[in-house]
Amino acid sequence: MAKISRLSGFPELLPSGRVIEQHILDTAREIFELHGFLSLETRAVEPVEQMQRDGEIDKEIYVLRRLQATADEADLGLGLHFDLTVPFARYVLEHAAALEFPLRRYQIQKVWRGERPQEGRFREFTQADIDVVGKDSLAFHHEVEMAVVMSSLLASLPIPRAVIQVNNRKLAEGFYLGVGATDTQRVLRAIDKLDKIGPDRVRVLLETEAGLTPAAAAKCLALAAISTPDATFVDQVRALDVRNDLLDQGLSELSAVVTGANAERPGSVVADLRIARGLDYYTGTVYETQLVGFEAAGSISSGGRYDDLASDAKQSYPGVGISLGVTRLVSILIAKGLVTASRAVPSAVLVAVADEASRAASELVARQLRRRGIACEVAPSADKFGKQIRYADRRAIPYVWFPASAAEGTAGDTVKDIRSGDQVDADAATWQPPLEDLKPKVFATADTSTASKESS
Amino acid sequence: MAKISRLSGFPELLPSGRVIEQHILDTAREIFELHGFLSLETRAVEPVEQMQRDGEIDKEIYVLRRLQATADEADLGLGLHFDLTVPFARYVLEHAAALEFPLRRYQIQKVWRGERPQEGRFREFTQADIDVVGKDSLAFHHEVEMAVVMSSLLASLPIPRAVIQVNNRKLAEGFYLGVGATDTQRVLRAIDKLDKIGPDRVRVLLETEAGLTPAAAAKCLALAAISTPDATFVDQVRALDVRNDLLDQGLSELSAVVTGANAERPGSVVADLRIARGLDYYTGTVYETQLVGFEAAGSISSGGRYDDLASDAKQSYPGVGISLGVTRLVSILIAKGLVTASRAVPSAVLVAVADEASRAASELVARQLRRRGIACEVAPSADKFGKQIRYADRRAIPYVWFPASAAEGTAGDTVKDIRSGDQVDADAATWQPPLEDLKPKVFATADTSTASKESS
Repeated sequence: MAKISRLSGFPELLPSGRVIEQHILDTAREIFELHGFLSLETRAVEPVEQMQRDGEIDKEIYVLRRLQATADEADLGLGLHFDLTVPFARYVLEHAAALEFPLRRYQIQKVWRGERPQEGRFREFTQADIDVVGKDSLAFHHEVEMAVVMSSLLASLPIPRAVIQVNNRKLAEGFYLGVGATDTQRVLRAIDKLDKIGPDRVRVLLETEAGLTPAAAAKCLALAAISTPDATFVDQVRALDVRNDLLDQGLSELSAVVTGANAERPGSVVADLRIARGLDYYTGTVYETQLVGFEAAGSISSGGRYDDLASDAKQSYPGVGISLGVTRLVSILIAKGLVTASRAVPSAVLVAVADEASRAASELVARQLRRRGIACEVAPSADKFGKQIRYADRRAIPYVWFPASAAEGTAGDTVKDIRSGDQVDADAATWQPPLEDLKPKVFATADTSTASKESS
Repeated sequence: MAKISRLSGFPELLPSGRVIEQHILDTAREIFELHGFLSLETRAVEPVEQMQRDGEIDKEIYVLRRLQATADEADLGLGLHFDLTVPFARYVLEHAAALEFPLRRYQIQKVWRGERPQEGRFREFTQADIDVVGKDSLAFHHEVEMAVVMSSLLASLPIPRAVIQVNNRKLAEGFYLGVGATDTQRVLRAIDKLDKIGPDRVRVLLETEAGLTPAAAAKCLALAAISTPDATFVDQVRALDVRNDLLDQGLSELSAVVTGANAERPGSVVADLRIARGLDYYTGTVYETQLVGFEAAGSISSGGRYDDLASDAKQSYPGVGISLGVTRLVSILIAKGLVTASRAVPSAVLVAVADEASRAASELVARQLRRRGIACEVAPSADKFGKQIRYADRRAIPYVWFPASAAEGTAGDTVKDIRSGDQVDADAATWQPPLEDLKPKVFATADTSTASKESS
């Protein structure tokens, strides 16, 4: 094999990073399953035509072709999925007859986008999604539930405090209609640029491209500036003196999400009326999530309610979902050194080998330990014991086991904690390491978590 | 969203199938970690040029292009990986300075091949690989270990008995040289076709394309016909009266694998001198695996020793690996109805809701259960209890919980086993379901496992 070059936007982790990612994925799965979400995976490819219709980010799709394609099959019409929501909606339609609704599923997979790579943006990345999808209707309380489940997951991870920022499309759209907007989508797209270009240039967009009056534009900017940790945003919106039925419904829903989620998980959710979300399939609550102290890295968890993503001639399948950006989160944690793993290898024990003739005896010890759930490996060569201990030390394997045949001057097996140097007699049929040594531990490097963090 | 059509070769599982796949993936991970293999993932794409050089299956590669690619970037030169060995070898070279050798890693990912889909062959499928890679050298005993670990995994799964068939490239190549072959690769490729075209047509290939004498061709066919459950194959090969040093080394290695693996796991491995393996990067032991009674479905686990896959100017990284074809195995299990799951959803309990006003009380019960590791969900709507019980029944959720406010005529909470109809008083802070109900169970539908199967 010849030259090697890293591919920009396609991150790969070293073992020490992978064990951190694995911990996050395991915790996500555990929390999702505790909340009754079943696991699904969809194929990596979708018809490009479909993704263009549903996704609105067509330029970022990777299209596939067979290397040895014949002329008549030059274009497969297939592309790699760019999120997990559009494929899941397609899966629901395709398999509706075999599914039970409301369907609660989680989906942890890679997605691909042909974006220009930059800080926090990747071409290949892993998402962990939950969605609840109903048949014809879906109760509103699931919009509260999404925030609760995700905040429960975020609080279970060894990461800085995370705050979910919630808004509501009905609230925004109703407000825009109430100030006289005729193209609410254009208003939304202008507001979505607040972080990038600032309020002065957004005001210009609102007046020129979205055709708002200066007064209406000012009210839309005032709306976007509202952010409260509770339902007091309602009074602030009312003070802007805009009346619209859809706005009322949105205010009521957003209150319920903020109040409901904070009742279960205090401080987990804020109402932030600037949140717009790029994808236009959302129709109700929308979520974004900031890691406190690392806001510039962008949202680590986003989603929303959608009514029309999956529907056919007979019925619709409204849903609500939220997604954890696993790769983005892991990249922040690793880049900033926020999280540490006790070791990268699963082995709690290295079984030493005295000489190649006695390798079978060492394998037998390993088998006995594994039978009781203790991960271990047998030394790859019968080097001097000092060298075998260094093999364990370099991998942070905490224990080295010396079978009787190998233990000089002792009658039976011994096991050495290579951190303390303590060496004790041991029986492979009964010896147990302390629970904290059994598996690699992943923990916050510094005290980046705050007092308000609790376990789920 | 409009028309839906399944894509041939891109299988998707329903929840009941996914829970079976999940069980296989979880068991693979557990067994791999118990044996000290760490987890790694590589990016999904590799430079096409590299894959063509290493893989020899270039025509099956899917190539990527950005949908909105400009003329100067029309070809990214990237393709989806078709296996996990070539990407892992590249990863080892790229990150060698940060890795500890010998490196023991497992890798569970999807791979893609632009093949024509057929029974047991997919365009997208999941593999679960283990490899051990050394720096400059790798001890032979790892070639025994691969067979032991994979057979340990296969015996831990609720599947029919599996037998690993082992051969050795040195043995085959030495033998071919010993009978006078000048192009051993051509002989190997002809022998590889035995299953497809039969011995008579292979004999023609050996004489015409590989240029063997009729006597030499007959000996090669006789070699391929040898299969023994122990080291007695050595005498059978000796009886063919071919002498070659490389053959001797191969015989000795293959004996050691068959004897060593069967000593640890009786009946797990047979020597089968017909096994050739398509990829030409193997240099020592090669493995294939048959599911007994389902041989026609093809090998469910394959691999081998490779000396030169990863090397640069300074050093080489010889390795040995074996891969479980998860998608192929799962497709056999589901198609033949060999495996059943007790339920597809994680929830052990459905918490009933008496009316929407008391939903918070039901959520509180759920939170208490989850805190103790009991997966549950809250009824999505406050229907009549009969309908809520049917919600649980349709998903095979075994228990329905009635909070005090909801339980008619009782003072406190009750929980009902909807299979037996038994309903008892219960406290959400202490109640525990029987262990076998806590998580979905996956088990062999009929007694397809044989007496020789043991747990790992």
